[in-house]
Amino acid sequence: MIRSKIIATGAYIPTERIPNEYFLNNTFFERDHSIIRNATETVIQKFKAITGIAERRYAPSGITASDMGSMAAREALTNSGIDPESIDQIIVAHNYGDMDHPGASRDAVPALASRVKHKLGIHNPRCIPYDILFGCPGWLQAMIQADLAIRAGMVRTSLIIGTETLSRVLDSSDRDSMIFSDGAGACILQANGEDGGGVLSTGGRSDTAAELGFIFSGGRNDAADSKPQFIKMNGRKVYEYVLDYVPQAMKECFDQSGEPISALKMVFLHQANEKMDEAIIKRFYGLYDMDPFPENVMPMNIAWMGNSSVATIPTLLHQVVKGQLKSFELVKGDVILMASVGAGMNINAVAYKW
Amino acid sequence: MIRSKIIATGAYIPTERIPNEYFLNNTFFERDHSIIRNATETVIQKFKAITGIAERRYAPSGITASDMGSMAAREALTNSGIDPESIDQIIVAHNYGDMDHPGASRDAVPALASRVKHKLGIHNPRCIPYDILFGCPGWLQAMIQADLAIRAGMVRTSLIIGTETLSRVLDSSDRDSMIFSDGAGACILQANGEDGGGVLSTGGRSDTAAELGFIFSGGRNDAADSKPQFIKMNGRKVYEYVLDYVPQAMKECFDQSGEPISALKMVFLHQANEKMDEAIIKRFYGLYDMDPFPENVMPMNIAWMGNSSVATIPTLLHQVVKGQLKSFELVKGDVILMASVGAGMNINAVAYKW
Repeated sequence: MIRSKIIATGAYIPTERIPNEYFLNNTFFERDHSIIRNATETVIQKFKAITGIAERRYAPSGITASDMGSMAAREALTNSGIDPESIDQIIVAHNYGDMDHPGASRDAVPALASRVKHKLGIHNPRCIPYDILFGCPGWLQAMIQADLAIRAGMVRTSLIIGTETLSRVLDSSDRDSMIFSDGAGACILQANGEDGGGVLSTGGRSDTAAELGFIFSGGRNDAADSKPQFIKMNGRKVYEYVLDYVPQAMKECFDQSGEPISALKMVFLHQANEKMDEAIIKRFYGLYDMDPFPENVMPMNIAWMGNSSVATIPTLLHQVVKGQLKSFELVKGDVILMASVGAGMNINAVAYKW
Repeated sequence: MIRSKIIATGAYIPTERIPNEYFLNNTFFERDHSIIRNATETVIQKFKAITGIAERRYAPSGITASDMGSMAAREALTNSGIDPESIDQIIVAHNYGDMDHPGASRDAVPALASRVKHKLGIHNPRCIPYDILFGCPGWLQAMIQADLAIRAGMVRTSLIIGTETLSRVLDSSDRDSMIFSDGAGACILQANGEDGGGVLSTGGRSDTAAELGFIFSGGRNDAADSKPQFIKMNGRKVYEYVLDYVPQAMKECFDQSGEPISALKMVFLHQANEKMDEAIIKRFYGLYDMDPFPENVMPMNIAWMGNSSVATIPTLLHQVVKGQLKSFELVKGDVILMASVGAGMNINAVAYKW
C-alpha cells in the first residue's frame, strides 16, 4: 500500500520581530467605525490575555510571499537530500499573492508556484506548479491533494508550501490586525510503501452560508468606504463556528485513521488564538470522554509567531521536527493529527503516522 | 473502469460588446515606453489580421469573476438536472480574483469557489470549494485534478469553473490589451463507468526559466514606473514557446488516449491568437505526417470573443455542445482533444471521448 510520507520540512521565519508594544500608538475602531474608548494599552492587554500573542513576525519590505516560500522550500530540499529535479509537483497555498509592500497590487501572474520553481532553479518540465486558494487551511488542503495524487500513482514527490505576507493587508485601525503575521513553511511529501508511516486519513468541510462573511476582505475601520484591501474577521462568529465544527471534523478524520485515541501523541492546530485552540482541544478530547485532556499534546508557537495563515502548521511542524519546541519530540511511529480552519469557512484535518 | 464524464456545460457571455473601433482613440506604446508611430487605425488593422479578433466582451461594472462563474455554473447545473447538493467539489480557476472595476483590489478572501458555492445556495458541508491559479490553462488543470479525484474514488461529481475579468487589468497604452476579454465557462464532471466515454488521458508541462517572464504583471507602457497592475506579455516569445512545445505536448497526451489520430474529431485550443492556433494545429498534425490537416477540426470563437483566459475552452466547448458553432457537432463516441497554454509558462492537454 502506497502512503505519502513527509521526508523533510523547512520554514522561513521573517526577521522583523514585532512586539505588542509596536501597536501602542494605534487608535482602534470597531467595524461600525465607532472609536474604541478603552486606552490602547488596555486593548493590547486584553488581546494578549485572549490570544496568547506577545510578538509576531513581519517580512522585510521587498521580500514577497514567493521569496519566503522559496526559502522555506530550499531548507526542506536541503534537509531531504533529494535532487530538486526529481520533484513532480509544487503546490503553493496562499491567499494574497506576492505583494512587496502594504497596499501593493496582489500579484499572482505567473502563479506563485511557478515563481518558486524558477527561484529554486528547477528545470524539469514534468514538475507541475500550481497555487491553491483555500483560506488559512490552504497548506493542509495542498497536502490532501498531494496525498491523493501520490496514492493514485500520478505523482511520486510533491513539494508543498504555505506562504503569506499578512502584514501587507492589515488595517492599523482594527485591533484584530495584531493577530496576524508573515511566514512560510514547506514539506516534501513522497510515495513510501515500506514502513507503514505516512498520511493515514484526511477530511474536511466547507460552510458558505452566513459563514462566507466571517473572514473577508474589507476597508479600514476608521473610514466609511469599504474597499476590500484588508483582512477582516468577525472574531466572535469565527470562535463560535470553530468550536461548533472543528472538534467534530478532527474526530471524523482521526476515527478513519484506524488508530485508537490513546495512540495520538500530538495535535497540530492552526494557531489563531490560544484560548480558542485550548477550547478546541478540550472539546475534541471530550468527544472521546477524555477530560482532562492529555498534557503536552498541543505544540504552540503563537506567543511569538502570531497567526501566519497557511504558514502556521508547516512552520510549527518544522519547529517540532527540529527539536525547537521543548517537551515536543517526534519519533518514528508517532501518530499526530493536523487540523486547520479559516476563510470560506473551511475546515480540514490530516491524521499522520511519523 | 471509472471514467470522468462531462455531464453538462454552461457559460456566461458578458453583455458588453467591444468592437476593435473601441480602441481607435488609444495611443499605443512599446514596452520600452517609446510611442508607436503608426496610426492607431493601422495598429488595429494589423492586430486584426494576426489575431483574428474583431470584437471581445467585457463584463458590466460591478459583475465580478465569481458572479460570472456562478452564472456559468448555474447554467451547467440546469442543463445537468442534478441536485446541486450532490456536488462533491467546486474548483474555480482564475488569476486575478474578484475585481469590480479596473484598478480594484484583487479580492480572493474568501476564495472564489467559496463565493460561488454561496451564490449557488449549496449547503452541503461535504462540497469542498477551492481555487486554482495556473495561468490561462487553469480550467483545464482543474479538470485534470477533478479527473484524478474522480478516478481515485474520492469525488463523484465535480463542478469546474473558469472565470476571469481581464478587462480590469488592461493597460490601454499597450496594444496587446486588445486581445483580452472577460468570460466564464463551467462543466460538471461525474464518475461514469458505463459507456466508455469520458477523460481518456491527460498531460502537461511547465517551463519557468526565462519563460517565467513571457506573461507577467507589469506597469503601463506609457509610464516609467512598473507597478504590477496589468497583464503583460512578450508576444513574440510566447509565440515561439507555444510553437516549440504545445504541439508535442498535445501529441504526448493524445498518444496515451489509445485512440488513432484518424479518430480525432475536434481540437479545442486555448484561443489567444488565430494565426498561432492555426500554426499549432498544422504542426500538431504534422507530427502525424498529416499535411494538410483535416478541415473543420478546430472550432473557434476568437473573432467575436477574444481571449478570456481560463474561460476560453469551457465557453467554446459549451458553444459547440449547444450547436452554436455551425459545422461543429459533438455526438456520442466522438474523440476530442483540449489543450491550453499560458502564464507560467504552463501547457496542458486532455483527450476525451464524448
